[in-house]
This record gives sequence, C-alpha cells and structure tokens, in this order.
Amino acid sequence: MRTVKEIGEHGLLERLQRYCPADIVGDDGAILTTDPHKSLVVTTDVLVDEVHFSDRTTSPCDVGWRAAAANLSDLAAMGATPLGITVGLSLPGDKQVDWVEELYRGIDACLNLYPTPLVGGDICRSQVTSIAITAFGEVDPQKAILRSSARPGDAIFITGLHGLSRGGLELLLNTHKKTALDSIEQEKLIKAHQRPLPRLDVLEYLAQIPPEIAIAGMDSSDGLADAIEQICKNSGVGAVINRENLSLDSGLIKLAGEKKAEEWLLYGGEDFELVLCLPVSFASFLKEKLGKNAAIIGVVTHNTEIQIVEKSNLKHQKTLNINKGFQHF
Amino acid sequence: MRTVKEIGEHGLLERLQRYCPADIVGDDGAILTTDPHKSLVVTTDVLVDEVHFSDRTTSPCDVGWRAAAANLSDLAAMGATPLGITVGLSLPGDKQVDWVEELYRGIDACLNLYPTPLVGGDICRSQVTSIAITAFGEVDPQKAILRSSARPGDAIFITGLHGLSRGGLELLLNTHKKTALDSIEQEKLIKAHQRPLPRLDVLEYLAQIPPEIAIAGMDSSDGLADAIEQICKNSGVGAVINRENLSLDSGLIKLAGEKKAEEWLLYGGEDFELVLCLPVSFASFLKEKLGKNAAIIGVVTHNTEIQIVEKSNLKHQKTLNINKGFQHF
Repeated sequence: MRTVKEIGEHGLLERLQRYCPADIVGDDGAILTTDPHKSLVVTTDVLVDEVHFSDRTTSPCDVGWRAAAANLSDLAAMGATPLGITVGLSLPGDKQVDWVEELYRGIDACLNLYPTPLVGGDICRSQVTSIAITAFGEVDPQKAILRSSARPGDAIFITGLHGLSRGGLELLLNTHKKTALDSIEQEKLIKAHQRPLPRLDVLEYLAQIPPEIAIAGMDSSDGLADAIEQICKNSGVGAVINRENLSLDSGLIKLAGEKKAEEWLLYGGEDFELVLCLPVSFASFLKEKLGKNAAIIGVVTHNTEIQIVEKSNLKHQKTLNINKGFQHF
Repeated sequence: MRTVKEIGEHGLLERLQRYCPADIVGDDGAILTTDPHKSLVVTTDVLVDEVHFSDRTTSPCDVGWRAAAANLSDLAAMGATPLGITVGLSLPGDKQVDWVEELYRGIDACLNLYPTPLVGGDICRSQVTSIAITAFGEVDPQKAILRSSARPGDAIFITGLHGLSRGGLELLLNTHKKTALDSIEQEKLIKAHQRPLPRLDVLEYLAQIPPEIAIAGMDSSDGLADAIEQICKNSGVGAVINRENLSLDSGLIKLAGEKKAEEWLLYGGEDFELVLCLPVSFASFLKEKLGKNAAIIGVVTHNTEIQIVEKSNLKHQKTLNINKGFQHF
C-alpha cells in the first residue's frame, strides 16, 4: 500500500485523471460548452495554512487577496471573463473572528477591482485552516486560450516582469535584506508578493484579435519556466527563449545578484502574468497596448527542446531545467 | 478578540454575508443569471475528516459517494440540471493512495448515475484530509426553486421517507443493534446512510408544472424540521404539519422505538429528499408520479408559527423545536 507522498502529486493526478473526461481537463480551468457561443470555465484552488500561507509572512487580508487573485488569474489564463467565486472555508473553533473577517475583506478587495461577486460557499470546523476557492467565468469557445494550441513559429509573449513576487517573499522572510533597496524598490517587490494583479485587463486587447487566430497560453503562477514547459508539452512543440529579452527588475538584482534574480525570474512563481503563444504581429500589438514590461521573449519551435540562448554569446546556450517547478507533497 | 466558536456558525455567516450580493445567496446554491433563459447555479460543500466522515463508520468509497450526492442534491433542490463538479482535496502525505482512489471511485459512481462529469480540481498537502466539492448546474430562471417563495395555502410536499439515514448511522455505530432487524430492514437503513440518492429524478416531473406556478423548497440534508423552518423563515410564513402524514419506516421503529424514530425523522438529517411548497393539485401530481413514500405532509400558513398537529387527537399539538438543527462549531 503506497502513500500519496511516495507517488507524488503528478503520480496521484495521473491515477485520478481517469475519472475526468479527457477533453475538458489539463488547462488552468475546465471548459464546459453549454452553448455554441458561450462556454463555462471553472477553476478550483485549495490553500492550506502553513503550506500555502503563514501568519508569519502574510496578513489574513493578503491571504484573501492572493487566493482571489490566483483564481481570477486562472480565468484570465483561459481568456474567460469572471462570473463569480465561491469560498469553502475550514477553520478551527479557536480561530479569531477578526482573522476571518480580514480574510474576506482581502478577497472582497481583489474581487471588487474586476468586479466579480462572491456568490457563497461553505464554512466548517477543522483542525487546520484551509480555503478552497472555485471561480467560474465565461468565454466564447472559439476564443478560449488553451495550453495545447501553440504552433511552431508563434511568438512567445509575456504580459509583465517575472521574479518580483519571489523577491518580495525574500524581503518578508529576511527583513534585514531591505537595507539593500530604497523604499520604492522594496514596495514594488512586496506589493508583487502580497497584492498580485490577475491580468484580466489583457482580455480587452485579446478581444481585438480575430477569432480565427489561435492563442495558446496559461498563467505563470507556478513559474515562467513551468508555464513554457507546460505549453510546449501540451502542444508537442519546443521553444527558443532569447535571454536578452528576459528583463530583470533592477531592485531584484540589487537584492539577490543577477544569477539568483534570473533563477527567481524563471522558477520563482506567483507572478500571475500570462504567457501566450501567438503570431508575432499580434504579439507586437499586445506589447504596444500593455507597455514596457510586456515582451516577446522567444519563439515556438518544431523540435521539442526548450532552450535559452544568448544572442551576443552563442556559446552560452542552456537547456531549461524543467524539473524545478513546484510540486506538492 | 472573539473566536469563531464563541460566535458560532450563524454569527460568522452573518458577518461574512455583507461580502456577498444580497440577491444571490440564501438558497442551497447561488443563482447567476447570464442569459434570460438559463441561469448558472453553483453550490459548495466542504467535508473534513473526523468532522463529517470517519474511517470508523464510512469507507472512502462511501465518503466520495455521499460528498457527490450532497452537492447534486443541492442542485436538485434548486431545480437545476447538473453540468459538472470540481473536487479540491487536501491530504496528509502519508495518506494511502488506495484511500484516494476509492474516494474518487465513489464520487464517480454517484456522478455516473445522473450522468455528471468531474471536470477537475486541485490536490494539496495538509495535516487534515478534507474534500471541497463545488457543483454547478443550470436552470431556467423562471423555474428555479427558492426558499423564499412559499405562499399561504401551498401544500408542503416531501419526495420520500425521513430518518432512514440516521437509522443507518445508528446501526453502523452500534452493530449489536442489528439483531433487532431482518437483513432487508438493515440493508435499507444502511444504504440510506451510505449511498443516498439525490432526487434529480424529480426534475423531470417538475418540468411538467407550468412555469408560472412558483415552487418553493430545499433539500432535507440538515433535517426535515430544518428544511421546513428555513423555508418558512425565508418566505415569512408558517406551517401546520399533519403528524399522521409523516410515515415512519417500520424498521426504524423496530430499531429505535416510535418516539426516537420520530425524532430522527424530524431532526436526523442527511436524507437528501426535497421539501417543496406548491399548490395542492401539483403536489398531488408529484405524489402520483413519485409513488408511496412521497407525501403531502401539511400546509403553509399566514401566521409564522410551525406546528405539528395530530388530527385524531387535537389536544396533542406541539410547536416544532427549531433549534435542534445541525450547527457547526
């Protein structure tokens, strides 16, 4: 009899996937087409005390914000407009009421930006605090963003900087490191960690791209490298990433040095940007609309390798280490 | 600083309800109207190890079945046809993989009866096993069943017997009590507890009732008395229940005696029948379709009291004890 820890998250998911229809899972959310012009998109996340958050680094208000943001980001990653979320909360009886109210204040503050209603949920007793959020939205099935539709020649496009959230966490865990940065640099990193913004603002520009243009993609919640790998794996393609186009935040370099900062950029996670694959002309259009932190970082290739190259130094090529992504258990 | 235990589940819900739009909560599920002819119905339940289930009384397969059934029952209670469910699972690393597979086998077996797809979810590490299920379905907004639309004169209708699930639990907790019953009686009670059937079969007959006939109702998952109370409270009405029309299962009486059996019927919970308020002619139509265990048990009244009367003995009236319903914390 094997334990969950022994087979790992991926091993467990593989065994359980037989209970799900094959055609509706594998993306940030599930798509259910109930109408030829409108599909329902559903996504679920569970956050557990001392696994995904901790009172030592995160206020309950920020826990709420981040939980809501992560789920809205999954909808954005599918190209879906949010309809609502539900919250299933498990709490020990001795939890402070103020903690719970702050949590909901954070959820509410994030939802209000978009605006998305909290439409109910469930509260129950448990020894461990956990938050299960389900978000649902709708998308024109023709315009859904999938991980599986990247095609060789597509530009690989990111909607913003990466590594900032990991930098913010570093500052919160090691407050003495703040001295390396001025207050604006500190604030930028900490805000990226505590108050990430799901990129639902991108949907407005995606709507201007003709529906016959397939857009592949997902969000970078588990890291930029993980997103590139997932898209390549699901689409049966590879990628060449141009090292020079991966911009590092200057505060991040000051905090951690260039080598560490690049590692956080690729593997840090929780930046909640979108990673999209689409024809270069439309990627350029998005870059123009989204401003300087958005970037075309590479190209989708036929062969299934994922490489990072430095044009100024062609000897300095490396294959992306795809095993560093976050795995539970 | 007060704790959750001090203010109780209802106190906490009251504080958190300000974060939800007032018009879409308060029923078994939330209704979101995205289309004039089709509304999305969403419902969430969280089940925690040693609070809602235990390896001592329930196999993981039955835990899965019951979790799926409870959520499908919430959809049935809104008059909604299921579209899919998501499962958010929290697990300690040392949980047996077989346990998890059995859980999903139970979920799958229940869903297949209706048939409803499992469209994904999330798995994460926690010290405590818990299962957060979100089910979503669709309903014609005109035909949604609400708790708030019962009207004086409506018949109060139940789709089946009550108390059986509580009787089954009693047999599982005290196996020596089985000797009072024959094997068919035992099986009936245990099956009612382990494999409850959400009453989605009723939707077919509800569809035959004209849409201008308002049907109020909910499911009896927290007990028949609780359901009657919730409907009356939300509709601003009262009820007179005819004691003679509340049928007790003969095995239940053998197991617990008539007094205890009646208590289980009213307060036992987890029978997952529907409690509906509608004009008597349509209640009779439903009774005819659903067979002998369905019954008209009383009438909705103007005054807000809830009474149980015995026609054969008019002195023997009592007011329903509405505080016995299940409350978490």
